[in-house]
Amino acid sequence: MKELVKKSADLSEWYNNIVLKAELADYAPVKGCMVIRPYGYAIWEGIQNFLDKLIKDRGVKNSYFPLFIPESFLNKEKEHVKGFSPELAVVTIAGGEKLKENLIVRPTSETIMYDMFRKWTSSWRDLPILMNQWCNVVRWEQRTYLFLRTSEFLWQEGHCAHLTHKESSDMVLWALDTYQKTYTDLLAMYGYAGVKSESEKFAGAGKTYTFECLMPNGKALQACTSHDLGQNFAKSFDWTVQDKNGDKINPWQNSWGFSTRSIGGLIMVHGDDSGLVFPPQIAPTQIVIVPIPAHELAKELSESIYKNLKNEFRTEIDLVEQESAGFKFNKWEMKGVPVRIEIGDREAKENKVVLFRRDTSEKMIIDVKDLNSKITEVLKDIQNELFLKHKKFTLDNTFKVDTYEEFKKIMNTTKGFISALWCEDAECESKIKEETKATTRCLPLENKPEKGVCVCCGRPANHRWLFAQSY
Amino acid sequence: MKELVKKSADLSEWYNNIVLKAELADYAPVKGCMVIRPYGYAIWEGIQNFLDKLIKDRGVKNSYFPLFIPESFLNKEKEHVKGFSPELAVVTIAGGEKLKENLIVRPTSETIMYDMFRKWTSSWRDLPILMNQWCNVVRWEQRTYLFLRTSEFLWQEGHCAHLTHKESSDMVLWALDTYQKTYTDLLAMYGYAGVKSESEKFAGAGKTYTFECLMPNGKALQACTSHDLGQNFAKSFDWTVQDKNGDKINPWQNSWGFSTRSIGGLIMVHGDDSGLVFPPQIAPTQIVIVPIPAHELAKELSESIYKNLKNEFRTEIDLVEQESAGFKFNKWEMKGVPVRIEIGDREAKENKVVLFRRDTSEKMIIDVKDLNSKITEVLKDIQNELFLKHKKFTLDNTFKVDTYEEFKKIMNTTKGFISALWCEDAECESKIKEETKATTRCLPLENKPEKGVCVCCGRPANHRWLFAQSY
Repeated sequence: MKELVKKSADLSEWYNNIVLKAELADYAPVKGCMVIRPYGYAIWEGIQNFLDKLIKDRGVKNSYFPLFIPESFLNKEKEHVKGFSPELAVVTIAGGEKLKENLIVRPTSETIMYDMFRKWTSSWRDLPILMNQWCNVVRWEQRTYLFLRTSEFLWQEGHCAHLTHKESSDMVLWALDTYQKTYTDLLAMYGYAGVKSESEKFAGAGKTYTFECLMPNGKALQACTSHDLGQNFAKSFDWTVQDKNGDKINPWQNSWGFSTRSIGGLIMVHGDDSGLVFPPQIAPTQIVIVPIPAHELAKELSESIYKNLKNEFRTEIDLVEQESAGFKFNKWEMKGVPVRIEIGDREAKENKVVLFRRDTSEKMIIDVKDLNSKITEVLKDIQNELFLKHKKFTLDNTFKVDTYEEFKKIMNTTKGFISALWCEDAECESKIKEETKATTRCLPLENKPEKGVCVCCGRPANHRWLFAQSY
Repeated sequence: MKELVKKSADLSEWYNNIVLKAELADYAPVKGCMVIRPYGYAIWEGIQNFLDKLIKDRGVKNSYFPLFIPESFLNKEKEHVKGFSPELAVVTIAGGEKLKENLIVRPTSETIMYDMFRKWTSSWRDLPILMNQWCNVVRWEQRTYLFLRTSEFLWQEGHCAHLTHKESSDMVLWALDTYQKTYTDLLAMYGYAGVKSESEKFAGAGKTYTFECLMPNGKALQACTSHDLGQNFAKSFDWTVQDKNGDKINPWQNSWGFSTRSIGGLIMVHGDDSGLVFPPQIAPTQIVIVPIPAHELAKELSESIYKNLKNEFRTEIDLVEQESAGFKFNKWEMKGVPVRIEIGDREAKENKVVLFRRDTSEKMIIDVKDLNSKITEVLKDIQNELFLKHKKFTLDNTFKVDTYEEFKKIMNTTKGFISALWCEDAECESKIKEETKATTRCLPLENKPEKGVCVCCGRPANHRWLFAQSY
């Protein structure tokens, strides 16, 4: 495992290294695309299981809409097409013939879905529409950053339509809250939930909400988004339904997405110089049992423990013969398995095992009879500690700043989140970006209005926004 | 519900009608494509849950490979590209620029996967590779037949590579068996498992296995396939690994797929003049509770029964106020829900309910205290009876034929499967197809060798093949 670059030395290099080495993903032969290998895909399945249940509990139903969108559809919502046109993949030939109308490989499905929604509804009785799909989308990228930035990625996109703006806004915030829960409870990641500035919002949205997480290099990751689309798309698609009074109204809509990008954040946030560190809730393998090679008694005990543990935990047993114990320990640390159980003949004789904890490198001697309860406790503790560690890191690197000098200094050194008053003028925002590479990440939901002056231009400001350099 | 065409009168028309009316799917604005609506997608989720577990139990792991395949990759296996080139969708523009090499939207993933397999392996220790992915694929179609024939469809594709042909063949047959189990146990469909003729096999395969199901109009549906790829692709991709003796060998490969087409078969096989009939195991809703509108006591009892049943069965309660009881009964019959519980005030007073069975239209009066056990029994019985009914229909319409006259007569009248001796010559096969529209469906695995003469040309024949007109 020597060739793994230290995370502390070069985050980017470490990241690319560990994703390949741990066999989470690989570069595909097509520019900008990736292959998600089984160990990485298992994480996505874990996220899907967790999130899909919450989505269904809210009454949202899964469905599937076509991969291809007629070019004319995308052109219907002006801001939407402007936002997406630079990154589209276009099918021009199909079935051996040049197509009369080009087909866009979906970068997101608003337009194709809402054309159908219109067809399916005529009255308020047909609302709300609460739909979701798990699928692949394509937004063309020149540079690949495994999981974090790829031309094709996997996600879920929820799309709802309501009779009133209130109901739609509630859904937008429900989605944001559900995503936050997925990050905190499942992925053990802390972050800020808030609303995007006008210039950073989704192409075609009225308002965009986001959850922003801090990476170890002080840059922010936009971890997911939830959009209040207002009536913009309904108007563009000329979609009306009769309300209870018999009047025609445009439905209020929202859309929200959570993608494989989250896996990139998960890797970056928790990993260390020895490799991956997975929170137990999402770890594809929670426990690995490693009998010391050639210790026969240990092997026997290991197999009996494996049979017992695998019903309760995601457990592997490593019986490969041609690797040394040390090599195996490194390998499983690199792969981020939260708990390792080491068993040699000496331990086996005493009916004990060594329990190694990946996050702290602690070793404990445990009686076999106490193993299940001890593991339950340790897994819970690791999950909790990883979250608290990331929360502390984030708070320690969130700086309340009132002068532009200090703002610039932080962005030139440690980076991190800056909480600063801002006038909410797009020109001022773009000046800050040019001079510091920092963009507005969001206006956190928890921030109360605060009178003062803009950190950059000195004009009146009403809210403290969160700034950071971003992925 | 009057406008539903009778299944017995016009199967095709009935099918298109019921798929739209029951909101299983809809035509998409893009030619050849479909939208899978929540009620239809729930069936796919049911199939995924069932099949994914069997796949994982066999040690096969899920992964995700790119949607786009470089055109040059497809050209590497000659038979493969010849088979697929007429139905490809081609991306020629991406990110605003004309691509140097066109990208094919995957029609199947052999070529993109095996290029990676080659990269990941060097020795026998790296085998077997056991991988699967759930994804969308595109094969361009001019005419849409919802679920049965669409330009884009969903499927799982398993791809494995082994050191020996024996191991690979075992996997091919395991997949076929697993698919058969999915059809019989989950979808309550009978069929024949067998091997395809040379001309009907998958482009690039050594052998293709299939499961063929008979539709009510006497046509066969190729319900899934499992391919023994031999070393064809490994050779085309110049993929070798060192075996245990240090010699370089080409791995033996197989691939197998099960698609949303199965949903089309499910609808056709079990439906009747009143609409859909779902086997309980796969039914998105297993029980619907319908209190007679405006019966207050009935409504109360219904709600308490609903609370109880929904933990054990997929249950809905219909409390819509503006529809009559008769309208509701028709609606839920049309949607194929296996069991309906009707409750009026009269029944409620006696703590009884009416249990209506969708497949036989039987009505039973049941004491509320016996409800759970009775439902369990009825659901099991429906599942079983539907399977037996389809099995009987299939066997009744499988004709052992020894003269070409009789062969032609059957294909001109009732249709169905014909079991006949065939010389296995492709020209003879193509003559039969031209003259009777029937193709070889498979050589059933259960068929023992049988000496005789070809039903068409009279030359020596060694096996009794299955013929049918096909979808």
